[in-house]
Amino acid sequence: MNSANTRNIYSGKIITLNIDTVTLPNGVTIDLEMVRHPGAAAVVPLKENGTVVLIKQFRHAAGGFIYEIPAGKLHPGEDPRDCAARELEEEIGYQPGKLELLSSIFTAPGFTDEVIHIYKATSMTKGRQHLDRDEVLEVVEVSLQEAIEMIHAGTIRDAKTMVGLQSVFIGRGTANLSAQGTLRFWRKAPQAS
Amino acid sequence: MNSANTRNIYSGKIITLNIDTVTLPNGVTIDLEMVRHPGAAAVVPLKENGTVVLIKQFRHAAGGFIYEIPAGKLHPGEDPRDCAARELEEEIGYQPGKLELLSSIFTAPGFTDEVIHIYKATSMTKGRQHLDRDEVLEVVEVSLQEAIEMIHAGTIRDAKTMVGLQSVFIGRGTANLSAQGTLRFWRKAPQAS
Repeated sequence: MNSANTRNIYSGKIITLNIDTVTLPNGVTIDLEMVRHPGAAAVVPLKENGTVVLIKQFRHAAGGFIYEIPAGKLHPGEDPRDCAARELEEEIGYQPGKLELLSSIFTAPGFTDEVIHIYKATSMTKGRQHLDRDEVLEVVEVSLQEAIEMIHAGTIRDAKTMVGLQSVFIGRGTANLSAQGTLRFWRKAPQAS
Repeated sequence: MNSANTRNIYSGKIITLNIDTVTLPNGVTIDLEMVRHPGAAAVVPLKENGTVVLIKQFRHAAGGFIYEIPAGKLHPGEDPRDCAARELEEEIGYQPGKLELLSSIFTAPGFTDEVIHIYKATSMTKGRQHLDRDEVLEVVEVSLQEAIEMIHAGTIRDAKTMVGLQSVFIGRGTANLSAQGTLRFWRKAPQAS
C-alpha cells in the first residue's frame, strides 16, 4: 500500500532531508519532501500548589523569545522518559518524582516524521540547572490557569506546550472518565446538583 | 541581537532548507538547520449539535492514516482566513458561516518557521468536497467530547488538531473570562454556589 524510494538531499546535525517517492493508497505516485528527525521529549512541570514551570527561550525560527515547556531531542536509543527527566533538570533545575505520558504527538506530519513525547511531571524535587551553550532561556512560573489564559491570549504559541498544558488542564477535571467511553465532564456538574 | 547569514541547501516544492549562522543573545554563534515553510491554516468545524468534523488522512510521515482537522498550506500572499475556508470546503464539503481565529501556532520552532493559523468554523452550510489527487482521506464526525477522549486515548496525535479541539473545548467552558486577567473556571463553580 505504501512503498517508498528515498533520495537523500542532506544529512545534518539534527535533521535529514530526503525526497521520498511514495505510492499512495489511491494508487497515485508522488514525490514528498520529508524531514527526518530523531524525535523529542517534553514535560509539563506541575507543582503541588498548581503552578507550572515554563521557560522563555530564544528561538531563531520564531524571531525571538517564546514560552515553552522544557524539552529536548532524544539521544540515539534513549528512552523518551529519561530524556524528559534530563531536560527537566537541565533546563529548569527540577527532578521529577513522577512522570506520566500525556501524548506522543506528530508536530507537522505533512513534511516531517518528528514525534514529541509529552509528559506531566509531579512531586518534583530541586535538582541543578545546567544549560547548553546554545540554550538562552529564563524560567517563568505561573499558575496553570494563567498558562491557559496565556494560550487564549496568543502569548503561548508553541504547539507541544499548548498540547501539554491543555491536556493537564482538561485532565484535572476529567477524573470520572467512564469505561464505556462516555465522558461526564465537570462543566456538566452544576446541572447535576 | 540576532543576525543571521544564510546558506541555501535546498529549495523545493513546499519547503526550503537553509543553514543559518546565528549569533544568539548570549553572544554564542551557531549554525542552525532551518526549514522554511510558507505557513498553513487549519479549522475546527463545529456543528450546532456539538459534533466536530474530522478527517482521517493518509500521511506518509506518520506511516499510515491519522486523524486531523481540515488544513492546508497558504498560497503566496493568501489571507489565512481564506485558506481555512478553502480547505474546509475542499476537504469536508462545508462552507463556514463564521470563522474565529483560535491561535497561530509554531509547530516545531527548533528547526522550522512554520506557523499554522487555527480557526473555529461555525454556522456551516453544505458546499462541495473536491480533493487533490494526493489527498487520501475520509470524513469522520464525532462529538467534541468524543474527540477530547480520542486525544486522551492517544487516537488523535496531530498537534494542530489537538490544539484546535482542546482550545474549543476549554473555550466553551470559559465564557466568564474577566477583563482583569483572572479566570473563573467552571470547575470552580461548585465551590462558589
